[in-house]
Amino acid sequence: MLIAVDAVGGDHYPERPVQGAVKAANESDNIEILLVGPEELIEKELNKLDYKSNKINILHAPEIIGMEDSAASAVKQKKNSSITKGIAAHKQGDCAAFVSAGNTGALLAASMFLLGKLEGVIRPTIAATYPTIQGVSLLVDAGANLELKPEMYLQFAKMSRIFASEIMNIEEPTVGLLNVGEEPEKGTDLHKEVHKMLSDMPGFRGNIEGKDILFGKTDIYLTDGFSGNVLLKFGESIPEILYHMLTKTMEEKGSDAQTQQTVLGMISDTMQAFNYEHVGGIPFLGVNGMSLVGHGGSSVEAIKNMILNASKCVENHVNHKIVEVLNN
Amino acid sequence: MLIAVDAVGGDHYPERPVQGAVKAANESDNIEILLVGPEELIEKELNKLDYKSNKINILHAPEIIGMEDSAASAVKQKKNSSITKGIAAHKQGDCAAFVSAGNTGALLAASMFLLGKLEGVIRPTIAATYPTIQGVSLLVDAGANLELKPEMYLQFAKMSRIFASEIMNIEEPTVGLLNVGEEPEKGTDLHKEVHKMLSDMPGFRGNIEGKDILFGKTDIYLTDGFSGNVLLKFGESIPEILYHMLTKTMEEKGSDAQTQQTVLGMISDTMQAFNYEHVGGIPFLGVNGMSLVGHGGSSVEAIKNMILNASKCVENHVNHKIVEVLNN
Repeated sequence: MLIAVDAVGGDHYPERPVQGAVKAANESDNIEILLVGPEELIEKELNKLDYKSNKINILHAPEIIGMEDSAASAVKQKKNSSITKGIAAHKQGDCAAFVSAGNTGALLAASMFLLGKLEGVIRPTIAATYPTIQGVSLLVDAGANLELKPEMYLQFAKMSRIFASEIMNIEEPTVGLLNVGEEPEKGTDLHKEVHKMLSDMPGFRGNIEGKDILFGKTDIYLTDGFSGNVLLKFGESIPEILYHMLTKTMEEKGSDAQTQQTVLGMISDTMQAFNYEHVGGIPFLGVNGMSLVGHGGSSVEAIKNMILNASKCVENHVNHKIVEVLNN
Repeated sequence: MLIAVDAVGGDHYPERPVQGAVKAANESDNIEILLVGPEELIEKELNKLDYKSNKINILHAPEIIGMEDSAASAVKQKKNSSITKGIAAHKQGDCAAFVSAGNTGALLAASMFLLGKLEGVIRPTIAATYPTIQGVSLLVDAGANLELKPEMYLQFAKMSRIFASEIMNIEEPTVGLLNVGEEPEKGTDLHKEVHKMLSDMPGFRGNIEGKDILFGKTDIYLTDGFSGNVLLKFGESIPEILYHMLTKTMEEKGSDAQTQQTVLGMISDTMQAFNYEHVGGIPFLGVNGMSLVGHGGSSVEAIKNMILNASKCVENHVNHKIVEVLNN
């Protein structure tokens, strides 16, 4: 299976995307790679690595969409960017999926514009992984749709359940509706309506509250993209904040160097769960194609995992299952 | 100044409210207390304490509104509850303020119903204190109004700035609008409109994101009550989660008892900032009167601080200043 990889996406290109791609190809018999980006840059990086040349291909795309570029205009203006050319190649059927650790907004815009939506989908969504004491839950919508209609909550829940069971290997994924209280009558009129609408869906566990999120109360947390985005960014800030606060506490207490090292080391190990660099990318659910986005700081391992996730999405017919569930 | 105190509010009544009230009266020359609740219960608790009998009065209120009671119906049905009788006494001018560590919804409902709104106020709001590495910021709205009109954001910002400068002693409090990105054009149409509306307000620092909250980027974080409530409850869950995660990490690593004690002790000290038990209560801003609510788990010290905050609100003419700012 040929997976296209954005060679110039994220904060550490071309090193990490190219290395992650080579690693995926070396480790998986059935995966071949199409590296998309400036040819010279890619070749220079490839020359440093051991790889099977018959499994690594290059698609020249001289333009680069930066992490801070405005999504819509970048896609329109940079027609020769890795994102635009990669998605276009996927659209033509040249590759089975496209993955990128680059600009999420641009990738979403290109996916929507070039690939379109699956049959019956109101709007595609992003389901982000969120660390919990149980492991990880899916937070959906993570920022693609700031305001939702009731039917969108239902579709997002259904699509996320398919991703959770097919890719995260969760049997019968549970779903919680993020709200201001547990009781069905809590929240806005919209939330009350959504609660009713979801009540027949398998796996629905009712409302969850802010205090339940880190406890991993359900496998899927359903919310609008505004609060989803705020929560996602809030979560990402926790490790640095803790480091800062603990260092201050220890300085005030005059803790010795040994103690400081022990405490901060333990925090650092514990906070690995919050380290988005290791998470293996998430797909745009509902898009008529398979494009996955990873964190800008993705490690080599994360890039490799994103490529494996993409191939798993294709092999397990995630999109076909979404169409079936939404249209029956 | 006579401050009415809900003697049966919160998770630890009558002990903590009565002890906190006695402490406030003992420590402040100008504060007298009206304890509101079942007379016998209050007297029994008072008998255990040293207090000046001429500074402590009792208003008999035999009914108790529980923490889980539905707000609106509790206020309507329990006319002899401490909350209803306390607010009614304040309305009549028998006391300068009412404070409670009890049911927030019921206290808000009673305040709205019996005291009404200040001139020019669209809706009263709750501004909750949020711990940051700078100290503490105000999160407003913290759950009283789940959906806001643009003008409400502006009023909440103005009222919160008065509270921050008069009670928290912050000179020229800064305000950030919680959004999904820094740029003015980010967010929903509502957020874009609010950003424009706020741009002339002194102290406005533009949009802030989820990742800025714990860093204390501004003194006041402006958001709707839905995301405010979610963030507030999420924040409260952090200490327990950390304790849990760190214990697990240390068990997996086989850390000795000494190390475990050192690490968890340091976390516990650091997390005091997140301990809402010590926060001294927050007023319903915009209500035509002065009613403050504290966390259900409020310590004796927190109850005392809530009483002192109430007297400070009255002495500094917070309500008068709100009317002036909103109507000019």
